[in-house]
Amino acid sequence: MAKKKAAILGSSGMIGQRFAQMLIGHPYFEVVAYCASDRSDGKKLSEVWKLSDVEIDARLGEKAIQGTDASALARQGVEVVFSGLPSDVAGPVEDACAESGMAVFSNAASHRMEPDTPILVPEINPEHLASIEVQRKRRRNGGFVVTNANCSVTGLALGLKPLVDAYGFTEVDVATYQALSGAGYPGVPSLDIIGNVLPHIKDEEEKMAIEGKKILGTYASGGFVDSPVTIYASCARVNVMDGHLEAVFIRSKSIPTAEEISRTLSGFRAKPQKLKLPSAPERPVIVLKERNRPQPKLDSMAGTPERARGMAVTIGRIRAEKDCVRFYLLSHNTIRGGAGGSVLNAELAYKEGLI
Amino acid sequence: MAKKKAAILGSSGMIGQRFAQMLIGHPYFEVVAYCASDRSDGKKLSEVWKLSDVEIDARLGEKAIQGTDASALARQGVEVVFSGLPSDVAGPVEDACAESGMAVFSNAASHRMEPDTPILVPEINPEHLASIEVQRKRRRNGGFVVTNANCSVTGLALGLKPLVDAYGFTEVDVATYQALSGAGYPGVPSLDIIGNVLPHIKDEEEKMAIEGKKILGTYASGGFVDSPVTIYASCARVNVMDGHLEAVFIRSKSIPTAEEISRTLSGFRAKPQKLKLPSAPERPVIVLKERNRPQPKLDSMAGTPERARGMAVTIGRIRAEKDCVRFYLLSHNTIRGGAGGSVLNAELAYKEGLI
Amino acid sequence: MAKKKAAILGSSGMIGQRFAQMLIGHPYFEVVAYCASDRSDGKKLSEVWKLSDVEIDARLGEKAIQGTDASALARQGVEVVFSGLPSDVAGPVEDACAESGMAVFSNAASHRMEPDTPILVPEINPEHLASIEVQRKRRRNGGFVVTNANCSVTGLALGLKPLVDAYGFTEVDVATYQALSGAGYPGVPSLDIIGNVLPHIKDEEEKMAIEGKKILGTYASGGFVDSPVTIYASCARVNVMDGHLEAVFIRSKSIPTAEEISRTLSGFRAKPQKLKLPSAPERPVIVLKERNRPQPKLDSMAGTPERARGMAVTIGRIRAEKDCVRFYLLSHNTIRGGAGGSVLNAELAYKEGLI
Amino acid sequence: MAKKKAAILGSSGMIGQRFAQMLIGHPYFEVVAYCASDRSDGKKLSEVWKLSDVEIDARLGEKAIQGTDASALARQGVEVVFSGLPSDVAGPVEDACAESGMAVFSNAASHRMEPDTPILVPEINPEHLASIEVQRKRRRNGGFVVTNANCSVTGLALGLKPLVDAYGFTEVDVATYQALSGAGYPGVPSLDIIGNVLPHIKDEEEKMAIEGKKILGTYASGGFVDSPVTIYASCARVNVMDGHLEAVFIRSKSIPTAEEISRTLSGFRAKPQKLKLPSAPERPVIVLKERNRPQPKLDSMAGTPERARGMAVTIGRIRAEKDCVRFYLLSHNTIRGGAGGSVLNAELAYKEGLI
Repeated sequence: MAKKKAAILGSSGMIGQRFAQMLIGHPYFEVVAYCASDRSDGKKLSEVWKLSDVEIDARLGEKAIQGTDASALARQGVEVVFSGLPSDVAGPVEDACAESGMAVFSNAASHRMEPDTPILVPEINPEHLASIEVQRKRRRNGGFVVTNANCSVTGLALGLKPLVDAYGFTEVDVATYQALSGAGYPGVPSLDIIGNVLPHIKDEEEKMAIEGKKILGTYASGGFVDSPVTIYASCARVNVMDGHLEAVFIRSKSIPTAEEISRTLSGFRAKPQKLKLPSAPERPVIVLKERNRPQPKLDSMAGTPERARGMAVTIGRIRAEKDCVRFYLLSHNTIRGGAGGSVLNAELAYKEGLI
Repeated sequence: MAKKKAAILGSSGMIGQRFAQMLIGHPYFEVVAYCASDRSDGKKLSEVWKLSDVEIDARLGEKAIQGTDASALARQGVEVVFSGLPSDVAGPVEDACAESGMAVFSNAASHRMEPDTPILVPEINPEHLASIEVQRKRRRNGGFVVTNANCSVTGLALGLKPLVDAYGFTEVDVATYQALSGAGYPGVPSLDIIGNVLPHIKDEEEKMAIEGKKILGTYASGGFVDSPVTIYASCARVNVMDGHLEAVFIRSKSIPTAEEISRTLSGFRAKPQKLKLPSAPERPVIVLKERNRPQPKLDSMAGTPERARGMAVTIGRIRAEKDCVRFYLLSHNTIRGGAGGSVLNAELAYKEGLI
Repeated sequence: MAKKKAAILGSSGMIGQRFAQMLIGHPYFEVVAYCASDRSDGKKLSEVWKLSDVEIDARLGEKAIQGTDASALARQGVEVVFSGLPSDVAGPVEDACAESGMAVFSNAASHRMEPDTPILVPEINPEHLASIEVQRKRRRNGGFVVTNANCSVTGLALGLKPLVDAYGFTEVDVATYQALSGAGYPGVPSLDIIGNVLPHIKDEEEKMAIEGKKILGTYASGGFVDSPVTIYASCARVNVMDGHLEAVFIRSKSIPTAEEISRTLSGFRAKPQKLKLPSAPERPVIVLKERNRPQPKLDSMAGTPERARGMAVTIGRIRAEKDCVRFYLLSHNTIRGGAGGSVLNAELAYKEGLI
Repeated sequence: MAKKKAAILGSSGMIGQRFAQMLIGHPYFEVVAYCASDRSDGKKLSEVWKLSDVEIDARLGEKAIQGTDASALARQGVEVVFSGLPSDVAGPVEDACAESGMAVFSNAASHRMEPDTPILVPEINPEHLASIEVQRKRRRNGGFVVTNANCSVTGLALGLKPLVDAYGFTEVDVATYQALSGAGYPGVPSLDIIGNVLPHIKDEEEKMAIEGKKILGTYASGGFVDSPVTIYASCARVNVMDGHLEAVFIRSKSIPTAEEISRTLSGFRAKPQKLKLPSAPERPVIVLKERNRPQPKLDSMAGTPERARGMAVTIGRIRAEKDCVRFYLLSHNTIRGGAGGSVLNAELAYKEGLI
């Protein structure tokens, strides 16, 4: 079957470039348009490359950047759009694409809380895709928007999902150690962060609470129903390039043993694994036994096969004592918590026949 | 009144040098002996200086280091000993000094959990000094050992004390962002920590739980009684020089407002403040109103007057929601959580007539 | 004698705030106006404070920021202006102040290469102040502008001055390890510099060559005469907060011994030392004997007395072999190479009766 | 032809592990023994893994470490030894292997200056391999030792070789910005290097001078003849993980244009390229045109094909003015300047029929 023609919005930014990198040789999608703002229009992708952990693929570097114009994309036959736009500009652009009949998979926050738009994490809530039917009714031409979640809640929700299902946990405290790439580019000034920790990230704690309830909730009778799980977060930025580490505390009257938790997490498999989606990690949650793991530098890229690198969540140091379960959780903020999340969303939508 | 002659053990290390720096011109104590292991014997203090945030005082730099020998110290007329020795060697040396009649104020963990030895934090448990009477009975010559607490629990306990007293909180979760100086020198290899977080510090979480119960507990009928407060900690090392930041979560059925908590913390004064001990900060807990504070680089040295710099705990971002109180807390790990803590302990003992 | 009323331009930036800090309690000058752009107008200095190595002085923090308006300053009786403005806006504003009769001491590059404006480094070229007489003729009301040099050439020129005078050196190669504060705020993005070195700083190498020739040159017959010294620089940014380190190579047919060079550098004293200017370091160049110094973290603040902290250049690892002299040189880029340089300039002008 | 059986010495260290990684699937050599000190004996390679920029290959991780014993290696049929031992222990162990008839390719300094042992850089001095014939005469069983050069001189010599050949340059000044991995593990304490530069690396400047003369020199009449090139180095450690950056200054009475230098460097090809050795980069020296390159984080891994990643030297910012040529040069210190260098040496010796 022919690949679907795809476009990337925000190609001059870090998330857009992760999309570009992850979609090289993708079996379902072929990127035919790399869009960015007028300032980058006409430049080659190599001229605005921002990722430093991967060398830009030679063919990719030669791609020319074009302006962001839904009509032009429509004329190019684009059916799928990956949006790495900043949240403050994403809304209208993504709407325009959806109104032109495209399936938009967005990393931006703009549409996340809309009542007919899913925050999709395929291992957690694939049934939320049903909301697209509702959304399509208000849009012309059959287009729609699917969002991924905030980068710090995505990994946490993945680790919580099997525990919430197995033990009914509802009270979660989390302190984050978030990477600098989460702030985009230029992002955090070096003078602020060197030898320092910044104990505040704008709107992040609120997003973790609100999006967490939607992601872990259900979709029933044409609407989203919030999960009873409440996430109380304290979010800080640390001197790390990629990978959000999180110290998780779960309070519950009755708790299982650490071993049992470890087994529950390790055994977790879900729809993307069953469907063998190309970017789905064989094991969505990997439990590390070493006493000083996970570490951002060592474990952010966890995940097999090759196409799923950075898509697995790692968890370590599981402790269960009296009424408190504690562990450290790590996920790659611009892959699983960013571009990779939306690629997996698109793969699920494709397999479900929605594109 | 003549100053008491004092010695510093571990003068070639970071804590010993903080002692040296903090005791320059001290009104109660005069350091007459800077001790270290044989390797440093005979060197000048300037030759082994490790603190980089302060230039070594010119007179201090000229001081000669001597070997560590309790008998020699006794002959020099030393009455007070400040111990910055590593915990694995501190025990016997500190005992020898105490047996020689000296008052030992120790930063080491060796004696902390003994039933007649206080973990003293003067703002929290000055009444624990009564245990010295018991301890003196088993030691010759009237000497004794007083310890300070682990660097990550000291600041936390200071912030908890007024809240526990006012609201009866008992369930505390904390995730730490600990500074590199806490690991001593050479400590953490640069290859391990650059661009990384290390989510494990040996024995630290256990110490926070156990020492927390003793510090916040009472002393009654000749023995220590544990506090009902339980601290569940997840401890991580971050790329920061000085200053342990902590994300604190307190769960309680009924909680006050954030404003009330802020007032309770800001209004906290205790015995060291009443006695106007030289190293006591005017305000032991300082609440910062800015939304991105406290920060290790900006706030670790909080505390007035000059002699109390680094002795105040700063707290910010207080949030109270449903059954959870959250805030960030910061304290200087080698001053309030290290040498400064023991200096304040000695000042209290001095004022109480125990030296 | 009454202190001269002074204003600071650029008070919301790092250099402006160094001025503010260095002028507290100054014996010659009293700051009566803290100016910044309209965005900061009306805010307190504490609200826009950017320096993290010093806590803001309590009285200073309360000072209100006013807009930048030469006429208003004239009405306030301001006679001396310290400019920490960015070079791209400094020119017209400084001119307006000079035309209103004020003595402007500027850290900006705007006026440095004018034929009647000195790049003053009081230890090197105090006679360049004579150019002010020429400058005054074209300005109304007796005002004038005196500039300091680029932050990376100031320290180098100080170290070169006694050597050039003693040995006639003319060929200098230098590779710099420059601090992040030199790029101002927000400056270098953290994603660019963490675990990295940036081997380019815009226009810096050219400035070092051109300004070096002017600074080390003479003033004769009403004009500046370039020095024969040529500085070939390669400038890089490293992950350091404050303090520009430089690896210096001097090629010469005949070279003295390392010991002789060390004596020449250590013995250097000049006009500011003779006049005992308040911010003049007792020793402008300090030679360190330790084999791994100078280090930015340990030595950037070198200089006595207190008011001259950060004003001394440190040099170490002097080697002389065949036809090459090598050493490492360090100076504080925002003190000696920034605000402190201009304060010293103003002190010299004051003592010389020019203000 | 069957692959040669190989052993790695120092498998618990960073260089040993680079060897392990680079020799996976190598066409000439098959590693049959991973040796380390007794402390690691019996552990799996994954238990002592130290490289953080690459995930350990799954099969590699399972390999068991054995003690370091030349006789045992001989019994295992080992013909080729790659030594990543520290220089202070390498000498006797490498000798024992050579005396047992093995070809030893060493990263250690122990044998570098021996009169019959080459410091081989295949692009520069392949004819130095002739010294092996002399060396074999004094050793039993036909074994020999070939060394690679110090990590900071290897890359520099590669960049100098085509220029020295083309223009007869002899006077080279260089200031280094060296990565932390060059100090091994645990190496530099984090407290020393964070926010700092260390302007001294033990013996490094001397090695660069002495080894430079031998590498760039000739082999004639059974002996090494020093090159007239003199390298004056000032070596500093910066806060970078991998990749030594160097600011190079070449003084010469007559110099070519920057464009000509660029062409000479870009056009450089040598014996490894002609022989198509598996780890030889297609282009040993890559000239980057961007004005802020090379950067350690972006360019250390330069080199194609895949097996030659990290084997190419990158050079940027070439400037030629009057009598001075300046540029920045970067090479990967543990690949081209470490394990990769010795692998390439072994490949050359293999192709030349010496193994």
